[in-house]
Amino acid sequence: MIPQDSIVALATPSGAGAIAVIRISGEDAITIGNSVFRSIKNKDLTTQKTHTLHLGHIMDNSKTLDEVLVSIFKGPNSYTGENTIEISCHGSTYIQQQIIQLLLREGCRMADPGEFTLRAFLNGKLDLSQAEAVADLISSDNEASHQIAMQQMRGGFSNEIAKLREELLNFASLIELELDFAEEDVEFADRTQFHELLNRIEFVLKRLIDSFAVGNVIKNGIPVAIVGEPNVGKSTLLNALLNEERAIVSEIAGTTRDTIEDELVIGGIGFRFIDTAGIRETEDVVESIGIRKTFEKIEQAQVVVFLFDSSEFKVSGLKLKVELEKIKNQFPLKPLVIIGNKADKLEENEIVNLKSEIPEILLISAKEKLGVEDLKNQLLSFVNTGALRNNETIVTNTRHYDSLLKALDEIQKVKFGLETNLSSDLMALDIKEALYHFGMITGQVTNDELLGNIFANFCIGK
Amino acid sequence: MIPQDSIVALATPSGAGAIAVIRISGEDAITIGNSVFRSIKNKDLTTQKTHTLHLGHIMDNSKTLDEVLVSIFKGPNSYTGENTIEISCHGSTYIQQQIIQLLLREGCRMADPGEFTLRAFLNGKLDLSQAEAVADLISSDNEASHQIAMQQMRGGFSNEIAKLREELLNFASLIELELDFAEEDVEFADRTQFHELLNRIEFVLKRLIDSFAVGNVIKNGIPVAIVGEPNVGKSTLLNALLNEERAIVSEIAGTTRDTIEDELVIGGIGFRFIDTAGIRETEDVVESIGIRKTFEKIEQAQVVVFLFDSSEFKVSGLKLKVELEKIKNQFPLKPLVIIGNKADKLEENEIVNLKSEIPEILLISAKEKLGVEDLKNQLLSFVNTGALRNNETIVTNTRHYDSLLKALDEIQKVKFGLETNLSSDLMALDIKEALYHFGMITGQVTNDELLGNIFANFCIGK
Repeated sequence: MIPQDSIVALATPSGAGAIAVIRISGEDAITIGNSVFRSIKNKDLTTQKTHTLHLGHIMDNSKTLDEVLVSIFKGPNSYTGENTIEISCHGSTYIQQQIIQLLLREGCRMADPGEFTLRAFLNGKLDLSQAEAVADLISSDNEASHQIAMQQMRGGFSNEIAKLREELLNFASLIELELDFAEEDVEFADRTQFHELLNRIEFVLKRLIDSFAVGNVIKNGIPVAIVGEPNVGKSTLLNALLNEERAIVSEIAGTTRDTIEDELVIGGIGFRFIDTAGIRETEDVVESIGIRKTFEKIEQAQVVVFLFDSSEFKVSGLKLKVELEKIKNQFPLKPLVIIGNKADKLEENEIVNLKSEIPEILLISAKEKLGVEDLKNQLLSFVNTGALRNNETIVTNTRHYDSLLKALDEIQKVKFGLETNLSSDLMALDIKEALYHFGMITGQVTNDELLGNIFANFCIGK
Repeated sequence: MIPQDSIVALATPSGAGAIAVIRISGEDAITIGNSVFRSIKNKDLTTQKTHTLHLGHIMDNSKTLDEVLVSIFKGPNSYTGENTIEISCHGSTYIQQQIIQLLLREGCRMADPGEFTLRAFLNGKLDLSQAEAVADLISSDNEASHQIAMQQMRGGFSNEIAKLREELLNFASLIELELDFAEEDVEFADRTQFHELLNRIEFVLKRLIDSFAVGNVIKNGIPVAIVGEPNVGKSTLLNALLNEERAIVSEIAGTTRDTIEDELVIGGIGFRFIDTAGIRETEDVVESIGIRKTFEKIEQAQVVVFLFDSSEFKVSGLKLKVELEKIKNQFPLKPLVIIGNKADKLEENEIVNLKSEIPEILLISAKEKLGVEDLKNQLLSFVNTGALRNNETIVTNTRHYDSLLKALDEIQKVKFGLETNLSSDLMALDIKEALYHFGMITGQVTNDELLGNIFANFCIGK
């Protein structure tokens, strides 16, 4: 481990709170911390044990900046693997600034985004996919994405990849060995076993690649378009769907999250309602929404909720069925939920009639909150959550997905080579390529540009 | 100390960041923490030393919520004086919520605002004025208010009050003793010494009461009105004043504070420019601001900056001088800065003429940033910062100010009684009243309502 300069950053969210935490990591972190800290018990921080807490004051020469608690972590027993201290100060933004400015004067420099985690990776505390999971974990805002990030951070994904890479590496060495003895035409690598391994790798890669569909959905949510004429109750439906959720979120004072406007979490999966600003604004304006505008909205969505006023079906049923036909023709593969709202106003015979006219109809009353649960279940049914339920490894990261696709391509080449008796030296090249792509996932193969891209997306202080 | 139930709250600002800190305090804090924590080294938190840090996972039964660091503080060696743990978790709002919900299920309850500090006060870790200083410290956003809060938190103010109270209490006991021996007409309390003490107390109280003027200014800032006709450069001046400040603030990435719009800090004192929205909006609208509207604005201000276009003085000088007269007549005691803007356009003879017509004029060019420093110095000159510079105790809290006024009133009654040979029993009553008001400041005298009012203004988690 090469001694690194000491980096400093605010680790807690900016703004005022009860406390804030300032983090310093680097060879001299404890020495620098000690130079601005006056312990109430006259302790010297540099001689304290790791994982201990110390009360005292941060001093800018003779001026007291704050009463603080300092945590000491001695490398390699720290997050970054380096000497680290955390200063827990009062949460005033003024104090945060003053302390950070003081530490900059004392020889620290501001940390880049993700630099603490980058150092953890470079020092072997985390592999690359685990490091990436840290950022995912911080940005997770529902159960499914949290669960996946947690699993990945604890090595679930890396372990699976690393194990396959290990086995492939073994065969690669044997084949390389054959090349050394090329004159003698020996086979160190058992071709049957090798073929069996390639099949196994192919199977796992395909499963991981397939999981990206649900992984992506979990990470980014499913965009849903609610379309329909004005005054059919789009806004009321949206509120009925979202309100319950909101109540849960605001239950705990002080932890109210910055709600992603109009996101609904069902069974751990986020559904994002798109262009709801438009719905809210135009709800009470009697104005026909042109079919072109509706089509644009549907294009952005993965699921379409078509809403109409079921009590008006007698009058406008024909027009409605034409509109529905247009949507179905234009987007034949897009999941569509057809909802008849205001069903509380219907007579029994009207219900029977509607169900025969539009068999897939879901009758609800957004106002009376009837049928809203059915709608939620129908939305969830579009997502295959099998992998999630079975606690399987799920790929959520586009970079991993790309590497997996490339690895699969190479593995299939190797397999084809094996089946067609390709010469060992050519096969060895394909194996190397596959190994390279595996390594890209876990970080056994990296370059500065790759690391730069990954960690630039982190927040500062992590 | 009566064992208290365990309270939990998020101690860091809400929202996502690298890390968040959840704080639990109460008799069972460590036991509850232990019940949801699985140490990576299989440690039992309840048997760990105080002021130590432990890595592990927060477990909701078999489900891992997060990898965390837990800090242990054993009462009385904690902020509240009770057993306390702090959980440093990943900064996702989802994780924060999940952990807090889990802790609520395990027997904690949500902390009220300021409840941690209230407990610290009830357990004798802080006196009342120190506890109040904690809230001031968190909300301090400039050097002066920070310095005063820090001084108060470290006991500067309380010590001064407590010392006087102590001496007064001694005399009170002696006088009470005289009452017990009333028949015998003895004097245990030396009247000359007592008179000297009362003078000393009166002197200190008066100084503290006087300091409130600057204390209030430091805490709340000085409201400044910038008035003048449209297009004289009000908006440009405001930007010239504020921009430099803003640059300093945004220097440190990640700690950008929620700037109080249009507040300028000069020499540690905040100046708030009032109704600047109006300035910004109407700057380019050619519209005469009526004198009535201007007067309303001046009424809210403590300092008035009157701005005019010096290059137009030849044309509109007379009108201008009439306006100035009106303002001076209406607000004779309000500090007024008269500024001739656009001075870069003036000829030498025009400058001479202006200075003879309006001797107190300050000539500047907001656009060229000439004279802006002079204006800042003039603004600062209106504040008597002597006490601040001399590091004297400054009263910033209205509650303390009220108690000091009442205490002074009683002390003067006692002094008058002493000088007019009032009977000891009546004098004893006035002394008691004075002692009561001293006690209200430091918290030796309190009631639930008082405590409720004080701590309700705290943020949750502190």
